[in-house]
Amino acid sequence: MTVPRYTPLAQSLPATVPFVGPETQERQRGAPFIARIGANESVFGPSPRAIEAMQRAAGEIWMYGDPENYELRHALAAYHGVAPENIVVGEGIDGLLGYLVRLLVGHGDAVVTSDGAYPTFNYHVAGFGGDLHKIPYRDDHEDPEALFAKAAEVNAKLVYLANPDNPMGTWHSGADIVAAMEALPEGCVLVLDEAYVECAPEGTAAPVAADDPRVIRMRTFSKVYGMAGARVGYAIGAPGLISAFNKVRNHFGMNRAAQAGALAALEDSDWLAQVQDQIAEARDRIARIARSNGLEPLPSATNFVAIDCGHDGVFAKAVLDSLVEQGVFVRMPFAAPQNRCIRVSCGGEAEIVAFEAALPKALASTRAV
Amino acid sequence: MTVPRYTPLAQSLPATVPFVGPETQERQRGAPFIARIGANESVFGPSPRAIEAMQRAAGEIWMYGDPENYELRHALAAYHGVAPENIVVGEGIDGLLGYLVRLLVGHGDAVVTSDGAYPTFNYHVAGFGGDLHKIPYRDDHEDPEALFAKAAEVNAKLVYLANPDNPMGTWHSGADIVAAMEALPEGCVLVLDEAYVECAPEGTAAPVAADDPRVIRMRTFSKVYGMAGARVGYAIGAPGLISAFNKVRNHFGMNRAAQAGALAALEDSDWLAQVQDQIAEARDRIARIARSNGLEPLPSATNFVAIDCGHDGVFAKAVLDSLVEQGVFVRMPFAAPQNRCIRVSCGGEAEIVAFEAALPKALASTRAV
Repeated sequence: MTVPRYTPLAQSLPATVPFVGPETQERQRGAPFIARIGANESVFGPSPRAIEAMQRAAGEIWMYGDPENYELRHALAAYHGVAPENIVVGEGIDGLLGYLVRLLVGHGDAVVTSDGAYPTFNYHVAGFGGDLHKIPYRDDHEDPEALFAKAAEVNAKLVYLANPDNPMGTWHSGADIVAAMEALPEGCVLVLDEAYVECAPEGTAAPVAADDPRVIRMRTFSKVYGMAGARVGYAIGAPGLISAFNKVRNHFGMNRAAQAGALAALEDSDWLAQVQDQIAEARDRIARIARSNGLEPLPSATNFVAIDCGHDGVFAKAVLDSLVEQGVFVRMPFAAPQNRCIRVSCGGEAEIVAFEAALPKALASTRAV
Repeated sequence: MTVPRYTPLAQSLPATVPFVGPETQERQRGAPFIARIGANESVFGPSPRAIEAMQRAAGEIWMYGDPENYELRHALAAYHGVAPENIVVGEGIDGLLGYLVRLLVGHGDAVVTSDGAYPTFNYHVAGFGGDLHKIPYRDDHEDPEALFAKAAEVNAKLVYLANPDNPMGTWHSGADIVAAMEALPEGCVLVLDEAYVECAPEGTAAPVAADDPRVIRMRTFSKVYGMAGARVGYAIGAPGLISAFNKVRNHFGMNRAAQAGALAALEDSDWLAQVQDQIAEARDRIARIARSNGLEPLPSATNFVAIDCGHDGVFAKAVLDSLVEQGVFVRMPFAAPQNRCIRVSCGGEAEIVAFEAALPKALASTRAV
């Protein structure tokens, strides 16, 4: 008998991880990045009020955070015009996706996503033994109709759709998503990941009734709110599903300073508006840089731009490798045909300048091979 | 067909939570506590260097934390004289216990713990469908021999032992634990929760070889290091089991400021020593207060004192309720016969004074009923 005796599922899981962190790459290359624009973090940072709240809370970090996330949940409910019972707060969308999958997906249960969409969702589905069905992107967009049709075909318990999409940055109108939801099969929950919706055009957020049992929406303070390192995400859904999280979540899992920071960030709408402007400007600059190098930027409703490098995944990977080598941390889509692109997060002046300098060299060295 | 279709396991889980937080009680009573000494938090707070590190990191919270926890893991390895491969960092011991149970325990798998030991462990075992066997305390101590004998009897995959114990504060010598481990059945992992070991007498930490596959030790920055709200725990174990956490953990789950704070806390041994002294002094004062009220304090190797109220659980609960009503947050053991006690965390001057004033009234009102 070996020790430990893992569950058959745990034994079957690969040791792969969803993402290699930039710190790991920095250790490998032996130097820090000069531009950290690969993980769709917000270089514009959080509201100064959020920073101040977190710094103040550091002095009271000897106390556990409120396991009910009461104040933050109530503030979010007021912000969205829903009830506190419609909101669960968790350790980033990643943490919430894990809990959601755990609640719904067991061995062999069918789940549907797009081929090349968020790997951490796939990681959780595999981690609970689900059977994942992948639908191709259509014209670089996730394809709600095809996703929901596949969900009906395989009797899926859960279907994942990011709007706006990561890694392509494309989007659908929220109204179109809601219309497409009519085709969701009975007994299927749509997890609608709206991580980037705060920098998307008006009308992108799905106008879903908070108590609609067919859908749970994911939001985060990691992207436009600039607090990725704090680990604060939340989900909006029907009270039954929301309260089910209490059966499995890490009740004392939230960092107390992060709770305070998120609350302060939510209240600073001026800062949010300013970051939205900075993101829009940075997207335009990244797009211009792409075009001036003969590449095609995809339209984006996110805080990053996917840039079509005009060839296949091997070519794009070579461009990416050269950028990384030059100290510019960027990432790229995992699946074809999206992997003809590189994905560049919005940066400030320093990051944009570094990218602008590095891209021509990356293209030249790649084309020279 | 209902929506959502929970897994049979999720459907079977109760909606109960391991602990009600003090904030919830404050909301219920409509007033803040004057002494927060119920959750074994450290009112002495973290090292000022840890606070400073967290405040500094608040400004860079737009970045995800390093998913490998590289610096903290390496510092912990050096601190303990083990390899980095022996260490996994996670979102508090609670988070790590969840991952550990998930790796090992499936439907109907046998697990052993003490009756009245850490409820969050039981919560995780239930949450993954395990079959939990409970062994009585012996003379207010957890009983390693009986635990390991039961583990052999039921072919347990996992057995839980806290040393020092929570909620009683009692302890065994680490050497005795290691000796008792000889009786661990093959194929069984001991999870040895050493959350309080930094304020226990010399010799309490189990002198276990880091690569011993029979045991995984849990440590935390929540207790003596005074960082409960940061959510930083770690486990020390054999590389195989440690690396298995990478199959299921939330790789980007750590708060970046918490990582920096824990690293700084670990480096401030002077602060740790000072807190150890403060804890020892507070334990003595709480014990004296108990005795001067005719109650019997249990010896403690933790940052709290269990006080035997001399009657049954109903009596102790009435004492506790009165303390809470008077603004003194304390807790008590859940299971008989330990629930004849109340559990009082070490406080500073203000908390001790508040407890000293409230206890006689609590006893008088309870005895008057």
